[in-house]
Amino acid sequence: MRIARHIQSLEGYVPGEQPKSKSVVKLNTNENPYPPSPKCAEVLKSFDLDNVRRYPDPNCSELALAIAKRFGTTPDRVFVGNGSDEVLSLCARAFVENNESIGSLDPSYSLYKTLAAIRDVKWIGAGRAMTDSKRGIPLVSRLADNVSLFLLTNPNAPTGEFREPEGIAAFARRFKGVVLVDEAYADFARGNCMSLATAPKNRNVIVMRTFSKSYSLAGLRVGFCVGPRDLIEALYKIKDSYNVDAIAQRVALAAFKDRPYHRKTVAKVVKTRKAFAKTLLRRGWDVIPSEANFVFAKPPEGMHAPDVFAFLKSHDVFVRYFPGPLTGDRLRITIGTDEEMKKLLCVLDLMS
Amino acid sequence: MRIARHIQSLEGYVPGEQPKSKSVVKLNTNENPYPPSPKCAEVLKSFDLDNVRRYPDPNCSELALAIAKRFGTTPDRVFVGNGSDEVLSLCARAFVENNESIGSLDPSYSLYKTLAAIRDVKWIGAGRAMTDSKRGIPLVSRLADNVSLFLLTNPNAPTGEFREPEGIAAFARRFKGVVLVDEAYADFARGNCMSLATAPKNRNVIVMRTFSKSYSLAGLRVGFCVGPRDLIEALYKIKDSYNVDAIAQRVALAAFKDRPYHRKTVAKVVKTRKAFAKTLLRRGWDVIPSEANFVFAKPPEGMHAPDVFAFLKSHDVFVRYFPGPLTGDRLRITIGTDEEMKKLLCVLDLMS
Repeated sequence: MRIARHIQSLEGYVPGEQPKSKSVVKLNTNENPYPPSPKCAEVLKSFDLDNVRRYPDPNCSELALAIAKRFGTTPDRVFVGNGSDEVLSLCARAFVENNESIGSLDPSYSLYKTLAAIRDVKWIGAGRAMTDSKRGIPLVSRLADNVSLFLLTNPNAPTGEFREPEGIAAFARRFKGVVLVDEAYADFARGNCMSLATAPKNRNVIVMRTFSKSYSLAGLRVGFCVGPRDLIEALYKIKDSYNVDAIAQRVALAAFKDRPYHRKTVAKVVKTRKAFAKTLLRRGWDVIPSEANFVFAKPPEGMHAPDVFAFLKSHDVFVRYFPGPLTGDRLRITIGTDEEMKKLLCVLDLMS
Repeated sequence: MRIARHIQSLEGYVPGEQPKSKSVVKLNTNENPYPPSPKCAEVLKSFDLDNVRRYPDPNCSELALAIAKRFGTTPDRVFVGNGSDEVLSLCARAFVENNESIGSLDPSYSLYKTLAAIRDVKWIGAGRAMTDSKRGIPLVSRLADNVSLFLLTNPNAPTGEFREPEGIAAFARRFKGVVLVDEAYADFARGNCMSLATAPKNRNVIVMRTFSKSYSLAGLRVGFCVGPRDLIEALYKIKDSYNVDAIAQRVALAAFKDRPYHRKTVAKVVKTRKAFAKTLLRRGWDVIPSEANFVFAKPPEGMHAPDVFAFLKSHDVFVRYFPGPLTGDRLRITIGTDEEMKKLLCVLDLMS
């Protein structure tokens, strides 16, 4: 056997398209429309390339320390990865035995299902029938016993829905395995679960964040998570020796420290999201209340999501369409600048 | 079970120490003593950070194309990873089933054993008894049937020995699984196996290279491999969506294209290696003929490797010591600048 059986049959995850043309209005992969903090450019300009001769700090110590301080915890409870993708992949290996399963909300980030397939374990999607209808939280009693890792995106993608931390805490108390709260979009939301992760008594909650969205550093691949000491230690044990590059470590630290710029950028995106959601509602779209940097919206009667997707694309406006019974009647539209949203609305006008 | 059993008991790989002090003569992790090509600094200086708002090219297309052209093959036979560490970790998952094993030479790069432990499969070390004594090549007949991935470092680490490509080709023809030839040090050697990897009939040889050694870019995490189309495709399927960051892709490409600088740097290291090996021999050391950017050498009678290691360290000269029956009587000394080697020799003088 040259290639493992389960990988031969695997269909890889397909990320959103990355068009080369700069003229495209790119609202398909939840990137930030604003550039990273000017402090990042300063770091880059003054970076001495002689430093990359040597291996980078294998533990991202400076960045981990800054993260720990910000959230009132210690660096041994912080893990920095090559994007939060790496954190997810490591969790799928550290916290799941070959006969166990990975759970997530359904719908949610479609990569989770692929992660389970790569790991050759079952993926359990907790749809409506498996969740508490009020809080939108999975019912432990309805999850298969062998789910050992639950990936809970909050705010969720592609829906943008926010779940209250209290509900997530209650779920984690009852759940035997590890709950990873994927907070990629939490900076755009009204709350977050970080205090669950840093609580001294926490035994199974990991909260994950990324520099790809609110910090505008998707190109650099830096994500991190905070959790109980033994779980964090397990991730360190199995990561690649030097997983985050030296420049990325320094640039991410600069972005992290520039809080005023971060707040300003996030506030701009949230403001545009609110205005854009209102406009869509006024135009007869059904818009799920979003706490992220995107909205998940259903076109008005007579317009079909895949057609709108294709029409927008033909006019150089890229949004995301996820086929399937739970998602196929909506589009996920990233919040760009006010101008980009205007352009999208103009193209929609051409359609009707 | 919160943490998978095999990971609870795992001891992580311990990379060579990265001292913060610039005054240390650092000859312990086979880094290049010369800075990367000046073209890299140009790329960095002119890099528009607005580009990192967006996700990087998930397939490192430009770099993969340049690599393919250089070696006379097509980009669909090239995979670029977050350092060759990532390539190794992906191979351990793509080409090894749960009931199979990973083989390597013994001694060899100690990470391989850790990789097998992380993957929860057996590691088989092919020591002298399992290799053809003339060619130093593993005998397929003596390897367990379930070895499905053989990691063959050439030149080998920590010994520096070079094995002739013909012998490796003969091994690969007989071996049922995948042979990954780890050519991290091949640019310092008199030959390499790239033509085995690019041969149209090749079904199981992958040749791996890195930008960390001869290109002086250890800090940036870029490695690549070349092999049969279906094996490369399997790696793409299971990698993280965006595994190599945007800046690293661009800087590595600049380094790769600056061939005159690369040749010059490599030639300097090789020249220093030859002179240094001669000096050690003259001083009564036993030096294994090396084709890498390090030597693996045994101190003269009366001096013990761990003592020499500690003495050098106490004088701010870091080399690498690997305890154990196969390696514990030697030191692995990275080739630095002529001055750095002189400094090491001076410290040795103090010892005797």
